[in-house]
Amino acid sequence: MSNGFLPRIPYGTRDFLPKEAKQKRVMENSLAGLFSCWGYDEVVTPTFEYLETLTTSSATDYGQDLFKFFDNNNSILALRPDMTTPMARVAATRLKDSSLPLRLFYLTNVFRHEQAQAGRQCEFYQAGVELLGAPGANGDAEIIALAVEAMREAGLENFQISIGQVGFINGITEEVTLSVNDRQRIKKCIVSRDLVGLEESLAASGLDEETQKLIKEIPLLQGGQEVIGQVYKAVKNPVSRAALENLTEIQRLIASYGLEQYVKIDLGLIRDFNYYTGMVFEGYTAGLGFPLCGGGRYDKMVAAFGGDSPATGFALGIERVMLALERQGITPSAVSKDLYVAWEAGAQDQAISLTAKYRRDGRTVELALKPQDRQEAEKSRLARDYNELVYVRADDAK
Amino acid sequence: MSNGFLPRIPYGTRDFLPKEAKQKRVMENSLAGLFSCWGYDEVVTPTFEYLETLTTSSATDYGQDLFKFFDNNNSILALRPDMTTPMARVAATRLKDSSLPLRLFYLTNVFRHEQAQAGRQCEFYQAGVELLGAPGANGDAEIIALAVEAMREAGLENFQISIGQVGFINGITEEVTLSVNDRQRIKKCIVSRDLVGLEESLAASGLDEETQKLIKEIPLLQGGQEVIGQVYKAVKNPVSRAALENLTEIQRLIASYGLEQYVKIDLGLIRDFNYYTGMVFEGYTAGLGFPLCGGGRYDKMVAAFGGDSPATGFALGIERVMLALERQGITPSAVSKDLYVAWEAGAQDQAISLTAKYRRDGRTVELALKPQDRQEAEKSRLARDYNELVYVRADDAK
Repeated sequence: MSNGFLPRIPYGTRDFLPKEAKQKRVMENSLAGLFSCWGYDEVVTPTFEYLETLTTSSATDYGQDLFKFFDNNNSILALRPDMTTPMARVAATRLKDSSLPLRLFYLTNVFRHEQAQAGRQCEFYQAGVELLGAPGANGDAEIIALAVEAMREAGLENFQISIGQVGFINGITEEVTLSVNDRQRIKKCIVSRDLVGLEESLAASGLDEETQKLIKEIPLLQGGQEVIGQVYKAVKNPVSRAALENLTEIQRLIASYGLEQYVKIDLGLIRDFNYYTGMVFEGYTAGLGFPLCGGGRYDKMVAAFGGDSPATGFALGIERVMLALERQGITPSAVSKDLYVAWEAGAQDQAISLTAKYRRDGRTVELALKPQDRQEAEKSRLARDYNELVYVRADDAK
Repeated sequence: MSNGFLPRIPYGTRDFLPKEAKQKRVMENSLAGLFSCWGYDEVVTPTFEYLETLTTSSATDYGQDLFKFFDNNNSILALRPDMTTPMARVAATRLKDSSLPLRLFYLTNVFRHEQAQAGRQCEFYQAGVELLGAPGANGDAEIIALAVEAMREAGLENFQISIGQVGFINGITEEVTLSVNDRQRIKKCIVSRDLVGLEESLAASGLDEETQKLIKEIPLLQGGQEVIGQVYKAVKNPVSRAALENLTEIQRLIASYGLEQYVKIDLGLIRDFNYYTGMVFEGYTAGLGFPLCGGGRYDKMVAAFGGDSPATGFALGIERVMLALERQGITPSAVSKDLYVAWEAGAQDQAISLTAKYRRDGRTVELALKPQDRQEAEKSRLARDYNELVYVRADDAK
């Protein structure tokens, strides 16, 4: 085709050309298969919702990051920035009479008006699950185990899941006197691993020295079960201790799943979402400076829609996984295209029937759309990447 | 869960609950498999594009039906109202160096701000293909044959495809003197099968009686090959005659595909889109007052993006097919959920390992999240619709 003007696509969006679209479909299908195998059912929700719905659970604040527009009645609509809120809406309304626990999954696109970056556009695809009505470590362990299996299913070989517990830091900062601002600033430094900022914030906070020392160490509290033992004695408040006990129990269950090698404790992991109420986790892989997946327990969100289920879940970034696979040199298995059926003048009808027969046998077949001599046909087969040429002559058509 | 307030979803949108979402996924996957088998490759494009891009091909005029919003630079974006324009954009730009013919498919949602109706919401899902660089009846016949196979693949048993050719009516109205308004009005009456309006428009048009009589008959010209023979002598202009010859050739090829029983000629079929330039078709089924699928040849659209490929294609409405299946009492095969694994206190670790083993064997397994006695476990299995209970006792855990 001739080269005319090149219409651009909007900032932060992309086209998936055939090879990428195929890889995406294969990955999404194998994830859907995995989630089904674990007893999860898919739900599909509208691409946009009332702004009010998306901000009902006031804990999720995407603010300026939402793509907003008006409906015919001047109500404000917005493209969904994540699936957790719509899934909580569905669970609390249309599925409110389902037997609990409720296991749901989604595989879809979400939209955020933020700075695009490698592996994260303004429109991007997520695979995720929500487990509702399952309080406690059993539900959390299932979710983490499923996240590990999802990354394996997607083809990743080297990855690590870090688990934290928001109750740990909450317990510490709530038993002391701290202004809301100071508490927020300290949490923010921990989320962003800003050790210098953390030290400054602590110095300005007026906290006693012992507490300052404890908080300063939080970002460094990473590793196996020994990390928990090490810090358990240092914290006295029941909220932090319950958080540590919860992590211990989750770790034990992960070992029962035989997946302990993928998981480590990271008490500095808080995640940048206010809706988490317990265990939180993120999955990382070599060569990618951002998490592939993330999740945790959010026991209050369903209540915002009138339900009352505790909930835990995670989301995996499809493009991020594709980027990780590419950077790790793990290429998806090539698509095999079987037969190119070409024909000489007079043999078209025969070629059509033959093609129909091959396709009934489940083979991938392209049928030539005009007569070709054998040499042209072979050239086309090569150019179009088919394994085999079937050349139909007029003589054969008898 | 308790019943709180019920957050609404926007007009013209819907949730797909587990059963529907499963049916949708199964159908989309089997369609993706079919299209691949025919040598078509998937392309995924952004959910929204610049308004300018969507209206570049001035033939598509969705006007007030677009969902519009602004990006950060105050450019107008719109949710895509169909996939034909984005696919033409991709073909003419990022895939412009591909060897022709280019066979592409999509399976995605599109958005139109119009009156919602049964089987057609403001957000709805389409499966479709585009065949670029294939002029003439061979390409058109492939597209129609693939549309038939797509409806069979989706599970439909009774359906019919009507084929028309916009060149037939164009040839007639262009060889006579007609105002643009009169021509539009006459076409509109034919599109909507408004025989009374058609008669009135013709009477007011000042056309000679012979032409009026011919045009008045157009909506009735339906049937097999004999319809073409019947009208061929009555039209003298070369454009209409070429259109009829094209239909004859397409019919012959459809017979080679062995699909002639699904297809009939309907010369009154024009379709309500201005971008078609040749063959057009629609698929219908009993009990549904609107087409399940539609398509045709649109040779000018790719040129609007700087390419120069002739093109033909179709789109199938996923929700419409689901509705047709439901109305015809064709139910999707029930989802089989294999095993519910329950455990008594002390046997959780054993139950987890056992569950992991079953899942590795590809079975669908739900693991209980708290200890249950055997009777409770059996109740849960029933409530949660699993075929079989596996009950793990602490004794077994040795």
